[in-house]
Formats: sequence, C-alpha cells, structure tokens
Amino acid sequence: MLKAANKNSHSTHFLMLNFICSEFLPVWSNYAMSNGGGGAGASISTHLLDLLEEPIPGVGTYDDFHTIDWVREKCKDRERHRKINSKKKESAWEFTKSLYDAWSGWLVVTLTGLASGALAGVIDIVADWLNDLKEGVCLSAMWFNHEQCCWDSNETTFAERDKCPQWKTWAELILGQAEGPGSYIMNYFMFTFWALSFAFLAVSLVKVFAPYACGSGIPEIKTILSGFIIRGYLGKWTLMIKTITLVLAVASGLSLGKEGPLVHVACCCGNIFSYLFPKYSKNEAKKREVLSAASAAGVSVAFGAPIGGVLFSLEEVSYYFPLKTLWRSFFAALVAAFVLRSINPFGNSRLVLFYVEYHTPWYLFELFPFILLGVFGGLWGAFFIRANIAWCRRRKSTRFGKYPVLEVITVAAITAIVAFPNPYTRQNTSELIKELFTDCGPLESSQLCQYRSQMNGSQAYPAGSDAAAAPGVYSAMWQLSLALVFKIIMTIFTFGLKVPSGLFIPSMAIGAIAGRIVGIAVEQLAYYHHDWFLFREWCEVGADCITPGLYAMVGAAACLGGVTRMTVSLVVIVFELTGGLEYIVPLMAAVMTSKWVGDAFGREGIYEAHIRLNGYPFLDAKEEFTHTTLAREVMRPRRNDPPLAVLTQDDMTLAELQNIISQTSCNGFPVIVSKESQRLVGFALRRDITIAIENARRKQEGIMLNSWVYFTQHAPTLPADSPRPLKLRSILDMSPFTVTDHTPMEIVVDIFRKLGLRQCLVTHNGRLLGIITKKDILRHMAQMANQDPESIMFN
Amino acid sequence: MLKAANKNSHSTHFLMLNFICSEFLPVWSNYAMSNGGGGAGASISTHLLDLLEEPIPGVGTYDDFHTIDWVREKCKDRERHRKINSKKKESAWEFTKSLYDAWSGWLVVTLTGLASGALAGVIDIVADWLNDLKEGVCLSAMWFNHEQCCWDSNETTFAERDKCPQWKTWAELILGQAEGPGSYIMNYFMFTFWALSFAFLAVSLVKVFAPYACGSGIPEIKTILSGFIIRGYLGKWTLMIKTITLVLAVASGLSLGKEGPLVHVACCCGNIFSYLFPKYSKNEAKKREVLSAASAAGVSVAFGAPIGGVLFSLEEVSYYFPLKTLWRSFFAALVAAFVLRSINPFGNSRLVLFYVEYHTPWYLFELFPFILLGVFGGLWGAFFIRANIAWCRRRKSTRFGKYPVLEVITVAAITAIVAFPNPYTRQNTSELIKELFTDCGPLESSQLCQYRSQMNGSQAYPAGSDAAAAPGVYSAMWQLSLALVFKIIMTIFTFGLKVPSGLFIPSMAIGAIAGRIVGIAVEQLAYYHHDWFLFREWCEVGADCITPGLYAMVGAAACLGGVTRMTVSLVVIVFELTGGLEYIVPLMAAVMTSKWVGDAFGREGIYEAHIRLNGYPFLDAKEEFTHTTLAREVMRPRRNDPPLAVLTQDDMTLAELQNIISQTSCNGFPVIVSKESQRLVGFALRRDITIAIENARRKQEGIMLNSWVYFTQHAPTLPADSPRPLKLRSILDMSPFTVTDHTPMEIVVDIFRKLGLRQCLVTHNGRLLGIITKKDILRHMAQMANQDPESIMFN
Repeated sequence: MLKAANKNSHSTHFLMLNFICSEFLPVWSNYAMSNGGGGAGASISTHLLDLLEEPIPGVGTYDDFHTIDWVREKCKDRERHRKINSKKKESAWEFTKSLYDAWSGWLVVTLTGLASGALAGVIDIVADWLNDLKEGVCLSAMWFNHEQCCWDSNETTFAERDKCPQWKTWAELILGQAEGPGSYIMNYFMFTFWALSFAFLAVSLVKVFAPYACGSGIPEIKTILSGFIIRGYLGKWTLMIKTITLVLAVASGLSLGKEGPLVHVACCCGNIFSYLFPKYSKNEAKKREVLSAASAAGVSVAFGAPIGGVLFSLEEVSYYFPLKTLWRSFFAALVAAFVLRSINPFGNSRLVLFYVEYHTPWYLFELFPFILLGVFGGLWGAFFIRANIAWCRRRKSTRFGKYPVLEVITVAAITAIVAFPNPYTRQNTSELIKELFTDCGPLESSQLCQYRSQMNGSQAYPAGSDAAAAPGVYSAMWQLSLALVFKIIMTIFTFGLKVPSGLFIPSMAIGAIAGRIVGIAVEQLAYYHHDWFLFREWCEVGADCITPGLYAMVGAAACLGGVTRMTVSLVVIVFELTGGLEYIVPLMAAVMTSKWVGDAFGREGIYEAHIRLNGYPFLDAKEEFTHTTLAREVMRPRRNDPPLAVLTQDDMTLAELQNIISQTSCNGFPVIVSKESQRLVGFALRRDITIAIENARRKQEGIMLNSWVYFTQHAPTLPADSPRPLKLRSILDMSPFTVTDHTPMEIVVDIFRKLGLRQCLVTHNGRLLGIITKKDILRHMAQMANQDPESIMFN
Repeated sequence: MLKAANKNSHSTHFLMLNFICSEFLPVWSNYAMSNGGGGAGASISTHLLDLLEEPIPGVGTYDDFHTIDWVREKCKDRERHRKINSKKKESAWEFTKSLYDAWSGWLVVTLTGLASGALAGVIDIVADWLNDLKEGVCLSAMWFNHEQCCWDSNETTFAERDKCPQWKTWAELILGQAEGPGSYIMNYFMFTFWALSFAFLAVSLVKVFAPYACGSGIPEIKTILSGFIIRGYLGKWTLMIKTITLVLAVASGLSLGKEGPLVHVACCCGNIFSYLFPKYSKNEAKKREVLSAASAAGVSVAFGAPIGGVLFSLEEVSYYFPLKTLWRSFFAALVAAFVLRSINPFGNSRLVLFYVEYHTPWYLFELFPFILLGVFGGLWGAFFIRANIAWCRRRKSTRFGKYPVLEVITVAAITAIVAFPNPYTRQNTSELIKELFTDCGPLESSQLCQYRSQMNGSQAYPAGSDAAAAPGVYSAMWQLSLALVFKIIMTIFTFGLKVPSGLFIPSMAIGAIAGRIVGIAVEQLAYYHHDWFLFREWCEVGADCITPGLYAMVGAAACLGGVTRMTVSLVVIVFELTGGLEYIVPLMAAVMTSKWVGDAFGREGIYEAHIRLNGYPFLDAKEEFTHTTLAREVMRPRRNDPPLAVLTQDDMTLAELQNIISQTSCNGFPVIVSKESQRLVGFALRRDITIAIENARRKQEGIMLNSWVYFTQHAPTLPADSPRPLKLRSILDMSPFTVTDHTPMEIVVDIFRKLGLRQCLVTHNGRLLGIITKKDILRHMAQMANQDPESIMFN
C-alpha cells in the first residue's frame, strides 16, 4: 500500500516535470549527451527510461584549472554526431545542418590557417619596421623599413645596398652628421631609448590587459592540450595583446624570438574560431583537435615548414592526436604557409625564414665536428634549462618577482647597451642567423666572407680559390665569440620575463654562432693542412671543400634540440629550410648527440621543466614510468588516512549527502551498494551533485534536508511521512574505470595517459578500496623522482 | 593442528622445489618477467613472496594465429629493463651488457635499414635487367641492361640513345634481321615466352617454398602490427623467396609493382635482425616497434621518400607507435635511402624513383581539373576495391582457386600478348610513369612531346612556342587510352595472384595516364582558346602555361589515394618526388577529393578490405564505432547461453579444472572468490593453465586428479588425507581489465584499441557477469555493419 502510493506520487511528479520543463528541453538538449556520455545513459535503452527526466543545466562542464575527462567528452561528441545523423533525413534544413556540421572541421582549420598566416605576416612586417626604427627612419615613406626604403635606391653595388639617401639614421636626422663620435653616441642613445620604450610598452600592456600573454605559451598549450582548463589563456584579449606585445618585444632587441609565441597566437585563433562551431565550442576534446591543428599552423608560419609544423604538433605539443587531426593539421599548416607567402613579408617570395642552398657535399670526416656541435648543443641545453629554471624559481619565490616592469626594463637596458657596439648583436637575431647560415658567395659583402681571394680583387670567391681567411674573418670571429657569450647570458635571464618571448631564435642563434666558428676553424684547418690524411682525399688546394654555413645550421639544430629535446620535427623543420635531403644525416647526427648529451643531465626539455615549475597537472606521454609500485600503494585513502568518502546508492538523506560534500574536498564520490558490501555502482562528480541539488531545490517542490537521495532506477521504499525523494541517477557515471589493487602502477599510468582519465577507482575482489586521481599519479611520480609532491598544484 | 601440518608440508615442498629446480632458474629467468608482467607479480613485494617458486617455462608465449596482450608485453619489457638497470652497477660485464641492451634498438634499426636498402637496390637492378631480357641482350656484357649497354655507345643524339650496336633484340640475334614482320613476330614471341617463364618460375617458387611470399603483404603486416601472431610470415624463407619472386614477377610484365612487397621484405629484415637481440626477439610488443621502423624503411626505399615512409608507417601500417619509434623509424628510413642511393640502381645519383622538376606555376583555375582527377581517382579506387574483392572472394570460395599456377600463367599470357603491341604497355610500368610525369623539354624524344614547334625543327620547345599538338601527341593519346583500359582490367585480376604483387605502381600508372590525357586536353584547350576568360589572364599565345606532367602526377596521387585511402603520407611521398612545396596544394586537393569520393562508396581501403576478406582479427584504429550498444549486449554469455566458465580461487580439484578446460574452448577463465559471491579475483589463460599443470605433473610429485587447485596466496585448509595441492597463483593475472555492464561499447572499443587488450571482463556492482574478447568486438562490429559475424576467423 505504502509502496503503491509512493509509486503513484512518483509518476505524477514525472509527468508534472515533463509538463513544466518541456520548454527547456531543446535549449539544454546538448546536456542530455553529457549525461549520456558519462555512463549508461548513452545507450538508447537507458535513455528511454530516463526520457522523462529533465537534463540538468551545467552538468558536464568544467571549472577553471580542472582536468577534463576525455572519455566523457568523446562520448558526448559521438552522441551529438548520432543525433545529427539520425535527424538529417527529416528535412532539407536538417540535412543542410548536418552538412555544415560535417564540414565545420575543415572550415575551422581553414579559418585558423588563414588567420595565423595573416597575423604572422603582419607581425613579421611590423616587427621589422619597428626594429629598423631603432636605427633610423625612411624619409620618403615613414612606414618603410630599411630594406624597403633602399629598394628604389640607385646604388647598384651589392655591397652598398644598405646605404641610400632616403634612409636616415637618427644621428643624421638630429645632428645632421653621419660620421664621427657624436653621431655614434647619438645613434647609441636612440637605439637604447627605442629599445627601452618598446620593452616598457610591451610589459605594461601585458601587465594591464592580459597577464596570460607573457612567455612563449608552449608549456601552457601543452598542458591545455593534455586536457586542462585555463580559461582566457587562448581568448581574444590574449590574442590581441600577445600580437601587439610580441612585435614590441621582438623590436626591443631582447634576446627572444617570435616563433614560440606564434604558436600561442595560432592557438588563440583556433580557439576563437572554434566558438563559431558548436561541435567544437561545446566539447573540450574536439576543441583540442583544433588546437593541435593550430599549433601546427603556428610552427608552419614561424619557419615556413608545413610538414615540420605537423610533426612538431604531433611530437611536441599534442596529446590526443587521431589521424583525422593529422590530416587537418597538415591542411591548416599549408593554408597558413600559403597565406604568409602571399603576404611575402621577407620580400623574397620564399616561404622560408632562412632560405639557404649549399652546393658542396659533406664528407664522412665532417661528422666528427658535427657530433661535436651536437655535444655543445646538449651541454648548452642542459645548462640553459638548469640556469633558467633556477632563475625563474627565484623570481617566483622571492620579492624580486613583484616588479616585472622594472625587471624587463633592466634586462632591456643591459641588452641594448651591450648589444649596440657589436654588429652581430646589434642586428636582428633572425638576420644574424640568416647571415651565419648563408654560404660565402661572390655577392656576399659580409665581413664573414672576407677571404684572401676576395681581398685580391677577384669577386668570385670559389673561383679565386684562395680560401685563406683575411683579417675580416678573424675580427668577425672575435665579435662572434663575444656575441655568443652575450647571447648565452642574456637568454637565460630573458626567457621567463613578463613579455612574449620565444626560445627558438635565441637558441638557434647561439648554435649558429658556435657552428660558424667551428666551420671556419675546420675550413682554415683544411686550407692550411690540405695534405693531411684527413683532407687529402677530398680537399684539393684552393677548392672550397668545407661549407661553414652548413656548420652553422647544424649547430643551430643541435642547440635547439638540446633546449627543447625535439627530434624528428626539428630535423624536418631544418630540412625544409634547405630542401636538400643530402644534409639530413649531419643534422640527424647532431640532433641525436645533442639529445643524448642533454638527457644525460636531465630528461626534461625546457617546456616540461616550466610545466613542472608551474605545477601544472601534465602527465607526459614521453616519460616512462619505471617503478614497481602497485595501485594500492598510490591510491587514497592511505593506510592511516580516514576512510574514503563514499555515497550509498539508496540510503542517504540530502543532509547526509551535503554533509559529506562539505566535509571533503574531493572532486567526486564513488557510489556503492551499501556500506557492508562495498560493491561499486558508479561515480558521481562533486560539481554535478552540487548543480543537481541546486537545480532540484529550484525546480522541484518538497525537496528537504531529510529527503532521501537515491541513485537507483526506482525509488527505495520509504516511510509514509518522508518527504519527496531526490533521484540523482542521471548524474551517475555508471561505467567508472576500475583497476584492481594489484595492478602495477605502470599499467595504471598507461591507462591514464592513453584514455585521458581523470580518476580511476581501485577494487579488491569486487570491493571498493580507494581512488587514484591524475594528481595522485603526478604526486607519486614526483615523490619517486625525489621531488616535492606538493609542487603539483591544480586538479 | 591440521592447518599447522599443512603449513609445514607446504614450506618443505617449497624448499625442496627450490633445491631441485634452482639450476633451471637462470635459464628460465626471462619467464619470471612474464608472470610478473601479467599481474601483481611484477611488484617487488609480491615477488618476494613468490621467490621460492619456479617460473614455468612456456608461460607468457603465444600460439600461432593468436592475439598478443600488449599490456602484458609492455610490462614484461619494463621488468626486463629494471632488472638490467639494477644489475648494471654490479660489474663491468653487466654494465657492458646494459649498454648493449640500450643500444640494441638503434643497432637493429640500422641493420634493418642497411639490409632493406641493399635488397631494394639488388631488386631494382635485377628486375631491370630481367625486364630488358624480354626484348634482347647486351652482347658486350650479358649482365648489362639496355640502358647500361648503350652508355658507351657513340650515338650522341638524344633521340637515338636507345639504339646501339651492342644491344641486340631477339629477332636480330635469332633471325639476323631488325626490321620486318618476321622480326616483329619473333620479338613478340620471345617477349611472351620470357614473360611466361618468369611468371611460372615465380608462382612455382612461391607455391613450393613460401606460400606467405605472395601478395603485397601489407594487409598481413597491418594485422601483425596490430598484435597478431602469424609464424613464418616474416621469416627468412619468406624473405628469400619473396625477394627472388618479386624480381621475377616484376620482370614478367604483370600489372603489379614492387613497392608494397618491398615493405614486406623490409619487415622480414626487421624481424630477422630482431632475433639477434633478446630485447626484441622475446617481446612481441617490442618486436613490433622494429617492424614499424622496417615498414618505414621499406617505403623509403620504394619511393626514395624517407619522411613519407615514416608517415606511411605512422598513418597506414602501425598500431602502437610511440614517439621513440618515430625517431628510430626515421633513422631506419634514412639509412635505407642512403644505402639505396649508394647502390645507385637508377644510374642518376637520385634517391627518387621519379625525379621531376617543373618550372611553371599552377593557376587557381587548374584546381578544377585537379579535383576532377580526384573524383576519377576516388571512383577508380571504389570500383577497384569492389571488383578485386569480388574476384578474390570467388577465387577463395570456388574450385578455381586451387590452380594458382595455371591462373598466374593465364594472366601473364594475356598480359604479355595484349601488352606487346602498345608501346605504353610494353615498357616497364615505372618507366611509363616516369615518362608521363616528365615535362616536355627540348631533349624529350617521346611521342608525347611531338608538338608542332618541335616538328618545325625548333628544338627548344617552349621557345619555339607553338604548343599545338602534332599527330604524334594524338596517336599517343589513343595508345594511352587503350593502355588505361588495359591496366584497369588487368590490375583487378592481378592483385591477389599467388605471386608478390604491389598495387602502388599500377594504381599510379592508371592515374598518371588519366592525368596526362586530361593535362594534354587542358593544354590544347588553353592553346586554341587562349582568349577565353579562363585563360586570358595567364595564358598568352605560345606560352606554355599548362604542365601536363603535373596533371599526371596529380592523377597518380589521386588514384593511389582512392585505392589505399592514404592521406598525409601520400601527399608527402609525392612531395618528396618533386621537392617543390608549390605543388602540394594541387596534390592535396586531388587526394582529398579522391578520399571523399571513395569513402562515399565504402570507407575501407584495399588493405582493410583484404584483411576483412581473410578474416584477420584487426581492430581498425581509424574506423569510428558509432553504435549505442552497451557492454552487456556484446559480452558472452548471451542471454540464452550456458553460464560463463569460471574457476574458483580455492575449491576446485585438478579433475574439475581439467574438465572445465576440456569442455570449453575459451582462451582464458576468470577466477572468482566463490560461486555464490561471483566476486572477481583474476584471470588465467588456458594456455598458461595447461602448461602449468603439465609442468607440475612432470616436476612435482603427488599431483593427482583429486589434488586441490588454488589461486590464493596460501593453500586452503584441506582434509588430512587429500593429496598435495597445486598452487597456480603465479599464472594468475591479478589485474584483469574490467568494465561495468553499463559501459557503452564505444568506450570499450576505445579501451581495446588504445591499450591493445585481448579480453576484458564485465561486472555489475562488483559481480562478474561475462567477458568480451577482441573477437567478440569484431563480430559485433561485423553484425552492426550487416556482415557475417562468422567471417572473423582467428583468435
């Protein structure tokens, strides 16, 4: 009798609910999936039973600084897809909608590619102009940079191409004289003044408008792609401020590059465009597919290397990278590269930042200096990572980090003051790299190419064939050595400043300088000792058998490899710069050596090190878990901890439930059959429970503190006077992941990585024992590596 | 009292065992890992308890035609690694061994690369020679092919380079005359004779020595890489016979290519070399890493495209592809490519099979014919897959398949007879493709380049600038159309013959012919209608604005894409052929279109279709599972089936256990606490149980049919007169994967794919309900696709 009455009231309440809330159904229909995705609700059979229940708004979304549940998100998407597919035959409109949906993936990557390419072009052009502004202005057209200004010039001699009447240095403009100590000081002053202004503007903009715009962004993007929420990190404000300040930071002459931040800029574009398409905006997993493609586009425009960009995205930043994404990433990278080429910011119709062509092959003996450069790259990488992390930790932990503007201005001032007297540090770093990469040809006017043959008046350098270095080369070597020391020191203090700052260009510059020095040394060795057994075979007198530019390129790759620990993508990026398959072997030898040497001092690349410094919950797919712990040793509760907070499926009141929620801080609670059996039924998320209770209080009458809460299909038998019960089955994930307590942690870590889990329950012989979350795993790994487990900060 | 006695006997038995079997321990020490890997034994804590137990030889290995357990294999490897690491500080010898172990990965891929490159070079050279043998011989040196024979010739005219006195056609040799109908018939006869001889030899060798050597091998390699055992498929016999018969098959003129089989050859090399290194030979998962690298090397030498090879391995064949493998695959691909280049089989110092350079850019309007070629490629792919599968099914199911030799000879005879009269089908397919790809230049003597400008005597074609086609072009068009029809028909009947046969070259040839025809059509259109609004902008009178060679390349890519449904790797392979980033966009447009068109007729590529035809248990990572089934609907036992065969942890006798094993055919049995509670303890594999029982019978006295079998840590309390119990804990996998009955199948499929599971147990509220194996999933998927679920054949 009692039961019947209860059942009656139950069904009336359902009908009423249906009546009241039917208007909400279309609006919140997307949340139906989120319920479904989480558990059994995904199936039609269960849906039929739950059909009368209203989906609860907000369930299935995430808080800021929380980890997403990949499995649930992917289920949500498949459910969405099924829904659209089943509807598409209903009407022409639905069919159009399904077509739009199917194409939206391609649309969003196309848009992202277009935007990234366009922004990269604008950044390149404006940064170039601002950079030249430090030296002077173009009188005929203010908006021309030095090179453009002199295009129309009548000076036909190649060596004189940089001097043209339209281009005035500041000394010429203000003092009216081009030579002499006064004008030198004037130029020096203006150079420093502009550098400081740009740096100040950049750091102020970042500080005031978008704190997320600082740094390279790659560590955070890696973390986001691994399934973490950082709201606003890829937003429109970040995009806008990062674009502007990136230009300023590059122009300020600080030892930083724009390549890393360009990846961030491209990801912002991807994120913003994904809001146009519900398929991507409402699904965190799908959104990450777009971001993977965007990061490929970012590298593609940074180096003009579409294939390298895709491999970079695959190897370095992406976490979940299905083959579909590979194809779309490739497309995005291509679109971006072609847009950039149409904008033609370098004025040479080339896609590539440093286009080089070498004409001489390399010889087996040269592998020795190449491997040496690899060792240098590895050592530099290891040293840089340690020094930079130590400095960043200091900045984080001491009072000193509270004055970012002052810090930036100080570093910019030192950089500008030290950089000006040395032509190799004064010029734009990309131009420096380009000069170092380029082989000496007859048209080359640089000091680096002052060989005796050229001094003798013979223009064609290899034909003149006197490859003895002239004094110009020796003085260039000295200046380059000083530049090397300067770059090494400044880069350590620059990376991590509160301005957009990339590492690729400074690292490559250091490697290129070292490589060029080694290259010239080997060249002179081969020239003066061409009858040594090493050189006898292939180095005839006067022939140019050594290409110092190739050494610079190998050195650049080695140093970049040492810092980032990239492998295939790095080799492919540099391969795309030269276009010759021939030089892959030297590159590979150097990159491999550099990685091995670097790994000997610590396996982390700079990005992983920064992720760890910031305590992001990033489970690296590359790092092997090699310990022999079992799941029961990692799970909570530990031996002396209070027991795990669990919910029972049908004998709790709302007050008890709220009590448990308020007394604990876990993100979710296992639901069990009963306290005695400890048999697991499912898992409910804290956020979902809170939202569901609030929603019920608002919408359903009669929900009181002593209402029974149940997760079962049917309400339990209740005493006659009890208030209306609260059914929470719809938020219950009925397929929680479980492992046994005997599972080795290596398997658990593998499951977490590959499936992108957030938590996993631990059972023993069918009874619930505990829970392992991603954070528990990261803490355990930190502990195993003798690090502070409390450094893992977020959830 | 009873318990104490039991305990005593227990420990004596342990000690005795240890005494008896200690000499076996070093020999079988590698099996300790396999036990450990499977479950809790991997942990040190459990190991300590089990230390006195002898590992059982044979446990942890696989039967032929069975699926491997990736998780267990990876655990085994990690355990091995830990062991070596912990030992390495003990002595210099151990340290050397650990170094050797660490380097063995690089060593094995280097060896594989070397061997693949060398074999590819030999195959290229011998196939070329044999192919020319069909037409004639070189009198000055028998072992020279036509081209090499005429290198020393004095004929300097480029058009006459193929005619030299040293080279004699068969008619010249036998009849002594080079012209006239008699010599034509003689040449025709010898051509057919040699073709038939080669084909007969190839099929006989395959039939007698290595039946696995037939076909392209890629479907089987995909299946093996996904975790399936086919013993001998990658063995030395297969390698040897495949290499020899591949040469013969290519030379026989059948419509097949050597690119697919080269992947098989490279994988055989990888497999054989992996036997030199215990790290790889004893671990099926690690071995597959080597095979992934080998397949990259195979494609690398097939096309001279190392990056494309790596992407092919990643996109098309590999299943488990960690980043470490990516790097090593790249290395293997490079080594192989450089060995091939040193051998220089094409005599042009080029790595690339079809090296082409185009000089004119493409225009936006041309995307239209490119997309048209894409549509053609997609249609051809869909048609070919259907027709070929239907024909292969017929061969499989009817009596007709019992005469493979006859079939091959028939096809070879038809091919030779029809092919000879048409110069485009008579020549080697690779050469045909090369000719079609090549742009018409002043030195081009081919009929395809007979433009009016050339006819007028002006050698430099673009300068002469009369791009009207001469009669030569028109007759070439006719011959090409006939060749197209011929290739289309013959390829359908050739792929699947019992000789090594690849699909890449025939598909590319079909596409290249179609592309060239379209290209010439567009070119003539542009020439005669250069004032149309379409051409007005960029096609001036007389300028060569259309490159028919580019159309051929785009067509080849489209057709290959339609058949294999490759995307990125295909574009990168073709990109590596040309080296110009410029032409990626047309390629991509065509490949994309071809894939979409092809997918509209069926989502499977030819390799997947052949896998399904053969019933291999291959769980495609690319195919999405979109149904809404729940785990409980797929698991066994089904509703009306007998209950699941389970073992209880401590109340069964050996007789009962053997009874269960003999009465069922499952590969493994869940172990539960008791029949009443149905709570899951672990999982034991049938093979392991059988081996363990046999081993115990042989080594331990007192094991009888009424001995108790127990899986618990300690023996259960037994009656005083019962025989010695049998402990099987060491073979128990204590961390079986479980899902709840409410888990959507899409999640289950995801878990199986990503973790490489073999089976998964299904529970409800902590009680064991059933089991899902990989085969169950494949059957369910077949059922969902309205296919016969019984077509899945192996375990």
